[in-house]
Amino acid sequence: MTGKLILIGCGPGAGDLLTLRAVRRIQCADVILYDRLVGEDWREFASSDAIIKYVGKAPGDGGVQQAALNAEIAAHVAAGRTVARLKSGDPMIFGRAAEEISAVLALEAEIEIVPGVTSALAAASDSIITVTERAELQSFVVTTGRTAKADEQPDWAKIVKPGVCAAFYMGVAQAWKIQSTLMAAGVPFNAPCDWVERAGQPGMRHVSTTLSRLAHDTHANQVSNPAILLVRYPYSLAKAVSAERAIAAADSA
Amino acid sequence: MTGKLILIGCGPGAGDLLTLRAVRRIQCADVILYDRLVGEDWREFASSDAIIKYVGKAPGDGGVQQAALNAEIAAHVAAGRTVARLKSGDPMIFGRAAEEISAVLALEAEIEIVPGVTSALAAASDSIITVTERAELQSFVVTTGRTAKADEQPDWAKIVKPGVCAAFYMGVAQAWKIQSTLMAAGVPFNAPCDWVERAGQPGMRHVSTTLSRLAHDTHANQVSNPAILLVRYPYSLAKAVSAERAIAAADSA
Repeated sequence: MTGKLILIGCGPGAGDLLTLRAVRRIQCADVILYDRLVGEDWREFASSDAIIKYVGKAPGDGGVQQAALNAEIAAHVAAGRTVARLKSGDPMIFGRAAEEISAVLALEAEIEIVPGVTSALAAASDSIITVTERAELQSFVVTTGRTAKADEQPDWAKIVKPGVCAAFYMGVAQAWKIQSTLMAAGVPFNAPCDWVERAGQPGMRHVSTTLSRLAHDTHANQVSNPAILLVRYPYSLAKAVSAERAIAAADSA
Repeated sequence: MTGKLILIGCGPGAGDLLTLRAVRRIQCADVILYDRLVGEDWREFASSDAIIKYVGKAPGDGGVQQAALNAEIAAHVAAGRTVARLKSGDPMIFGRAAEEISAVLALEAEIEIVPGVTSALAAASDSIITVTERAELQSFVVTTGRTAKADEQPDWAKIVKPGVCAAFYMGVAQAWKIQSTLMAAGVPFNAPCDWVERAGQPGMRHVSTTLSRLAHDTHANQVSNPAILLVRYPYSLAKAVSAERAIAAADSA
């Protein structure tokens, strides 16, 4: 009999941001494979018989190779075990979920995904920033501050438009590049930018700045990962900038 | 002594998608004001002394007016009570949180936000759709299918670009408009579209279609709210379309 793969979103790392469903699935797991940022609080719910293994990656280290991990998951499932794969945040966001799902598809095993609190929303809660707001912010975008290839990056200038709040994951090292790209694209210098370190956890820190000071304040405050950057471009700010530019154009005419 | 306002994200409505933190805050609340889509499972955690009140709005009915609700929250907090405001999904997304926070700011009362599982991510989990994917989908956008003014709408064509997965909240009635706007903007006819009704809950239903059939299949399957629409535009699809257009241009030259 084949087993089951359960990808579990554990939230940003605070034990009490686990959902009840996550807790119940952890209790039933034969094998628990956990990532670096999920914390340790889930351990109290694990069965004493469970096989528990750390499979996380730290930035810079090679960590457990994804291919080897996929093979390990498949072997456990093929042997009839229920595998709980604990991921930080939500499994469908920046979680390499597709690759782990593919690894067991050929086994025709049961797959379950347990959604979790994604780090960007924990950051918004901790800093009391609403990521949508009537007549001001209509869309919320989750994107990454880094990419697989060093010379490629998401098109940040197209992402941060009037009416958008954007959350950047893993963006600390790229703060200067995010700043210069957005300013070159005309995002106002005073667009609010907020860093939240260790969102959802007791050691949370909130650093509030603006786009023109983003790189400076990131460095001066020694912001370090895991941290989420929230950049907001409300409609009222876009209108104020248009009005200023119209006045400037009239003055110089 | 002033009380406290706690905005609590209860997830998409399934009782077991409450976080442990949400459960603990509900247990301590003197007053519980709850929305329509939070379900009923949280009741088992409420204190028997708590004042409990439904303050939800159904589409079309006037519901509890926001201004009256804000005043009610402020009165309870001013009287020293701990108010748990239960919201579906995450409180910072389409939750009118800013207005309720403003209502108690003048009281200098404590405010806490408890993040929750947002419905779009529960929909992604239920349908086993990864909303980001290495080299295919770099950004995930949450937006709304309707707006405060009937004649205004978010600029969907600018949102759904190569590398983006977009989640539309409250989009059932606008499916035809979403389809025609995106197709007119050049989003490929075969871009995958997925409806998830009652995400995270036992009665979940998944309807999979493509952009060119979106309006038809929404109607034919009688998709109804609450439902999330996921539209994906992976890079590989954009490349395939470019290649086809180049061949077509060469053929007609």
